[in-house]
Amino acid sequence: MLDDLKATVCETNRALPGTGLVQLTWGNVSGIDRDRGIFAIKPSGVDYGELKPGHMVLVDLEGKVVEGELKPSSDTKTHLELYRAWPGVGGVCHTHSPAATALSQAGRELPAFGTTHADHFYGTVPVCRALRPEEVADDYERETGLAIVAHFADHQIDPLAVPAVLQHFHAPFTWGKHARSALDNSVALEMCARMALDAWAIAPSTPALPEHLLDKHFLRKHGPGAYYGQK
Amino acid sequence: MLDDLKATVCETNRALPGTGLVQLTWGNVSGIDRDRGIFAIKPSGVDYGELKPGHMVLVDLEGKVVEGELKPSSDTKTHLELYRAWPGVGGVCHTHSPAATALSQAGRELPAFGTTHADHFYGTVPVCRALRPEEVADDYERETGLAIVAHFADHQIDPLAVPAVLQHFHAPFTWGKHARSALDNSVALEMCARMALDAWAIAPSTPALPEHLLDKHFLRKHGPGAYYGQK
Amino acid sequence: MLDDLKATVCETNRALPGTGLVQLTWGNVSGIDRDRGIFAIKPSGVDYGELKPGHMVLVDLEGKVVEGELKPSSDTKTHLELYRAWPGVGGVCHTHSPAATALSQAGRELPAFGTTHADHFYGTVPVCRALRPEEVADDYERETGLAIVAHFADHQIDPLAVPAVLQHFHAPFTWGKHARSALDNSVALEMCARMALDAWAIAPSTPALPEHLLDKHFLRKHGPGAYYGQK
Amino acid sequence: MLDDLKATVCETNRALPGTGLVQLTWGNVSGIDRDRGIFAIKPSGVDYGELKPGHMVLVDLEGKVVEGELKPSSDTKTHLELYRAWPGVGGVCHTHSPAATALSQAGRELPAFGTTHADHFYGTVPVCRALRPEEVADDYERETGLAIVAHFADHQIDPLAVPAVLQHFHAPFTWGKHARSALDNSVALEMCARMALDAWAIAPSTPALPEHLLDKHFLRKHGPGAYYGQK
Repeated sequence: MLDDLKATVCETNRALPGTGLVQLTWGNVSGIDRDRGIFAIKPSGVDYGELKPGHMVLVDLEGKVVEGELKPSSDTKTHLELYRAWPGVGGVCHTHSPAATALSQAGRELPAFGTTHADHFYGTVPVCRALRPEEVADDYERETGLAIVAHFADHQIDPLAVPAVLQHFHAPFTWGKHARSALDNSVALEMCARMALDAWAIAPSTPALPEHLLDKHFLRKHGPGAYYGQK
Repeated sequence: MLDDLKATVCETNRALPGTGLVQLTWGNVSGIDRDRGIFAIKPSGVDYGELKPGHMVLVDLEGKVVEGELKPSSDTKTHLELYRAWPGVGGVCHTHSPAATALSQAGRELPAFGTTHADHFYGTVPVCRALRPEEVADDYERETGLAIVAHFADHQIDPLAVPAVLQHFHAPFTWGKHARSALDNSVALEMCARMALDAWAIAPSTPALPEHLLDKHFLRKHGPGAYYGQK
Repeated sequence: MLDDLKATVCETNRALPGTGLVQLTWGNVSGIDRDRGIFAIKPSGVDYGELKPGHMVLVDLEGKVVEGELKPSSDTKTHLELYRAWPGVGGVCHTHSPAATALSQAGRELPAFGTTHADHFYGTVPVCRALRPEEVADDYERETGLAIVAHFADHQIDPLAVPAVLQHFHAPFTWGKHARSALDNSVALEMCARMALDAWAIAPSTPALPEHLLDKHFLRKHGPGAYYGQK
Repeated sequence: MLDDLKATVCETNRALPGTGLVQLTWGNVSGIDRDRGIFAIKPSGVDYGELKPGHMVLVDLEGKVVEGELKPSSDTKTHLELYRAWPGVGGVCHTHSPAATALSQAGRELPAFGTTHADHFYGTVPVCRALRPEEVADDYERETGLAIVAHFADHQIDPLAVPAVLQHFHAPFTWGKHARSALDNSVALEMCARMALDAWAIAPSTPALPEHLLDKHFLRKHGPGAYYGQK
């Protein structure tokens, strides 16, 4: 069932260590088939190099495992809530990439300091509040997803325009049209976080880039007027 | 004798350079067979790429070499004292990984700033005091192990809950259930130290993560209620 | 047409990921045949590993595509304006390398802090002003090239002596005698930016190197008295 | 002539890029045959991957090329003066490794902050003064070597105990018993410089490690009482 999706999600998870974003098994990618309402996700705690398409776990939008012999990623319910709330999202990626995680730990949002950021994120990448004791006790990973969704709704941030969040005391989540673009956004986020750390070191009050440059760079890559790439 | 143990310990030492934690021959891993009371450890000053299982040196809990033609790691007696004091430990790893070593040199303990830390270490990773002149003159490497054991006892830190220490002016030691988990804890420690350096740079008074998140992340990976991974 | 040039430009683009300067598809190199007045450039948004010489797009000095089935890099008009203004330039390279991009975002020029810098850049690498809204609306990438050219003219900087610029809020551009030397200058710029970040951290008022050392190092590698290398 | 020496020096130069210490052709290693009074050194500006033993240039202690069709490294006379002054030195290595070069540019000496340093350098790694205009005009690379030798003599530093220097506004030089140990000292110096940058960031007044630990670590690896390694 959904062999192409499992193959793609497997390949994208296998690509994680090569990006330098993950150590050990600290990261997971999923991708969804919107027609079926089923997503494929990495199994929990399995080394990337050992992953095969058949290891991917298929989960429906009620959170039920519909195929797979292994336990899905412990973060599965977070992915689930993002897919449930945001129909335009086709893939989700979670890593503990070092610079973005340092910002998450410090509770520091990531302004759009340059065109690298604007190419992927149409404005500041926000910090989502830490989960409360009762949320952690109840259903931690699901509540994490719900908190992220609520943050974007409350602050009127379009998740397709800013496909990333820094979870306070935890680490980043990113998403995209499909599994690969979710991973690409994790790569972009880590680089932008690294550059921000370096820019802050020499210029603590570095301003965000001007609005017209933010618009130009995001819109030359995204939306109806995009002209970057071959399509 | 103990061929499986020697193979595992050899393989784990050979994995060290690929982790980016060690340069030259600055690191060593050991693993113990608790039934026999014998541990296998890297020989001193041999390049990782040249290591074969037969090079591993077998040492008993009195510190006597019971098999092996090469001299064991110069840090052998430190490993020994950790094994003697802490029966739950099955592997020990020592590296001079750069961020954790910078903290060791600065004498700065590593608070639990995020879930990455909490996944491996149930609270602050402590700094162990420097050895005194008479300890160095007497039996330096053994005294190092004894000082670490005393630090954990004096401060009532459970070494299985916080499987790492920063040795002042020196570098980290980590441990775990077996050689590989000891190495994994060195990887985790280095990443947490790197993230802490970056978090301190932008937020010098970054607080540790809240207690309920520390509990949640450590306990979802460790102990009877753990649900991370496939077991 | 221009098979050697396309092969060289292709190979240089393919070398980009290995330098550590680029992530995803964030970088492009071009090279020009001055006799024909035609340059070859990377196609837009194509992964480096997939590039073949036949994918390179040939563009003349009016900016017209004269060969190639793919769309050229979105930065093509920036390359074009540098070639038009500076007849001594044979190759152009653009990356979002992290340290140089952090400086670009912070709007901080890069003084010649040491001989590493002086070996490649005969003085401070300047920051070029951000583009204005009307320039962005009109013809963004071309205006970027024109702004760089104007900056060098207005400040009387010889582009062959200082073959690099930091575009404010954006990232660096470098150039050289041919595609490969343009890339080499990007490598040098990134290293010098990294070293500057580290030097500023410990000594915020680090001075530039003395004039006589700047002269010596630049001139032992460049110009009629050069004696570095085999030529 | 001296085929073994040329093979070793070639192999050590070829190892440079893999250490992460050099970019482009920014580094060179030499090794000497003390009986013959001849050293082998990398040719100038040749890519490491292309080097073959026959490319190594043989130079005598008067600075005369005695074998080799290529021009020797532009830093040859610096190596020469170190060999002439210090009979115990068997190899010399020069790189522009980023952290050590940042310290060189900032004119900041490197104290012995930990045992990693003490394992290789018996005390502070000094900064050598910049060359004066007349020295640069006269015979720059030779004067660089002479300035280093004079610095060690004037400050009564034993070059075999502290086999490294940070050349102000330039970069590090290291040396050792042979070419490989000279390179190993460059690796150690870069790591110690990196750790120092990180330690200074969190603790600007970090003290050097206590004398008895410096003694212990240097002397367990060097001199008659050494017990590290297999010899």
